[in-house]
Amino acid sequence: MAGFERLGLIAGGGDLPVYVAEAAQGGDRLACVIALKGFADPTRYDSPIIRGIAQLGQVVKDLRLADCDAVCFAGIVTRPDFSALKPDLKGMAFLPQALAAATRGDDALLRAIVGFFEKEGFTVIGANDIADELLVPPGLIGAIEPSPGVRADAAKALHIAGVTGAEDIGQGAVVCDGLVLAVEAQEGTDQMLARVAGLPSELRGSAINRKGVLAKRPKPDQERRIDLPVIGVSTVEGAARAGLAGIVIPAGGAMVLGREAVARAADAAGLAVWAVDMDERADVADDRNPDRKH
Amino acid sequence: MAGFERLGLIAGGGDLPVYVAEAAQGGDRLACVIALKGFADPTRYDSPIIRGIAQLGQVVKDLRLADCDAVCFAGIVTRPDFSALKPDLKGMAFLPQALAAATRGDDALLRAIVGFFEKEGFTVIGANDIADELLVPPGLIGAIEPSPGVRADAAKALHIAGVTGAEDIGQGAVVCDGLVLAVEAQEGTDQMLARVAGLPSELRGSAINRKGVLAKRPKPDQERRIDLPVIGVSTVEGAARAGLAGIVIPAGGAMVLGREAVARAADAAGLAVWAVDMDERADVADDRNPDRKH
Repeated sequence: MAGFERLGLIAGGGDLPVYVAEAAQGGDRLACVIALKGFADPTRYDSPIIRGIAQLGQVVKDLRLADCDAVCFAGIVTRPDFSALKPDLKGMAFLPQALAAATRGDDALLRAIVGFFEKEGFTVIGANDIADELLVPPGLIGAIEPSPGVRADAAKALHIAGVTGAEDIGQGAVVCDGLVLAVEAQEGTDQMLARVAGLPSELRGSAINRKGVLAKRPKPDQERRIDLPVIGVSTVEGAARAGLAGIVIPAGGAMVLGREAVARAADAAGLAVWAVDMDERADVADDRNPDRKH
Repeated sequence: MAGFERLGLIAGGGDLPVYVAEAAQGGDRLACVIALKGFADPTRYDSPIIRGIAQLGQVVKDLRLADCDAVCFAGIVTRPDFSALKPDLKGMAFLPQALAAATRGDDALLRAIVGFFEKEGFTVIGANDIADELLVPPGLIGAIEPSPGVRADAAKALHIAGVTGAEDIGQGAVVCDGLVLAVEAQEGTDQMLARVAGLPSELRGSAINRKGVLAKRPKPDQERRIDLPVIGVSTVEGAARAGLAGIVIPAGGAMVLGREAVARAADAAGLAVWAVDMDERADVADDRNPDRKH
């Protein structure tokens, strides 16, 4: 991670930016929180500045006023209706580039945003670099070991999520008994899990006979400073409702929010949650057995 | 197509087997219809024999009694709960092989079924070979031309459906303004389209500003005699509700049920439906512009 002294946190929705704010505050490095209107819950931060996502000029001014040398993006921001944005001047100047990048996919859009802030002179820092305990080493989170069958589904789910990630489709997939039940695109993980819960019962597991695995992994070439996959208690709960037997992530490649609470939820539901050591950038087409090191 | 004289139609759900039965009856080649319990609607056929999907021995007897030399599978059959099947003796003997194939994916399972009937001495014929008007040549179905933007989304959607098809995930994908909105796995096309309709309105089109394309195509190496993709009026209606501007299929690679009704529905909704000339077996990884011949 590049060094920095004063951090501006640009917060979207969900729990991740709250964790990052706490971690940065601990090190006394948090200079300001910019809560994005319509995404972040401003009541969860101490004196946040509230801005719309197209107020780029204003955000840059805010960061400079707070004397920031670095910026961190954390939390959920869905694609806006570009035609309904009310950009300021800098926002307006950036919009054509953002639009062009957006047609190439989410990752291209995120890279364009990173590039914008770097050009303004800020170092862009990943959420996991601030709150480095969010990444986990290889091994179990919780007490339940995956069976060999569950591990086989996990290997295939990681492979599928890698193939679809390489196409910038999404970061998640669900495999049960070798069959790909669902692939995540714009609907997000929670909705994908709800869809699995609604599939015919013959295709999936159940609370009394858990089967199948959710894999989440970064896209093979993604901008890791912005959009690493995240799992939390709600992911475990959704997987449990879908009858799954496990959740697998690459060690060091996905953030776990509230590791102890995740472990408790997994144990209570009877699910294995674990991280595998893998080469995330390995050619996904040849990567048929991504947890081979275990 | 291999020659044959007397056809046994094994019918699953939906409209396709009804079209096939009509076409085969026309040529006076239909010897019997076996309606699969729980899938086919037996009232849509003339004196069907009703069998469970694991009564393989009985089905083979039925086909022999009707003096069939060929068999055609048509219609929707979802994966059964293998543990709840009541197989007859032949079914029991085939079950281990079916289970092993099933863990490799849908296509492997279908190939195993084709292999079983071939080994019993029947020629396996594709639905499209019986009702060959179900396949369409390159060009518009209906009157509405896709715009260049819609064609660009179509090319990407065909590419994505090819990549996911190569992994035996599914046959469909939806792309809007370059962004992959949804990928079809076990939920099926209708549910995928319903999901797109439920995405945030910024991401998709609407009835007054149609955007985005559904592509359906065969998996690059799939068993074409069983599981070619199908579109019909309900597909057009689902795409219309999802705000899409078009549906694209490969010429000769997907079946259109009720071509005139599909054209009318597409014109009424303001959607382009068209078939493109493409090499379906081209390496999907390099096939970034699959409708390049147009």
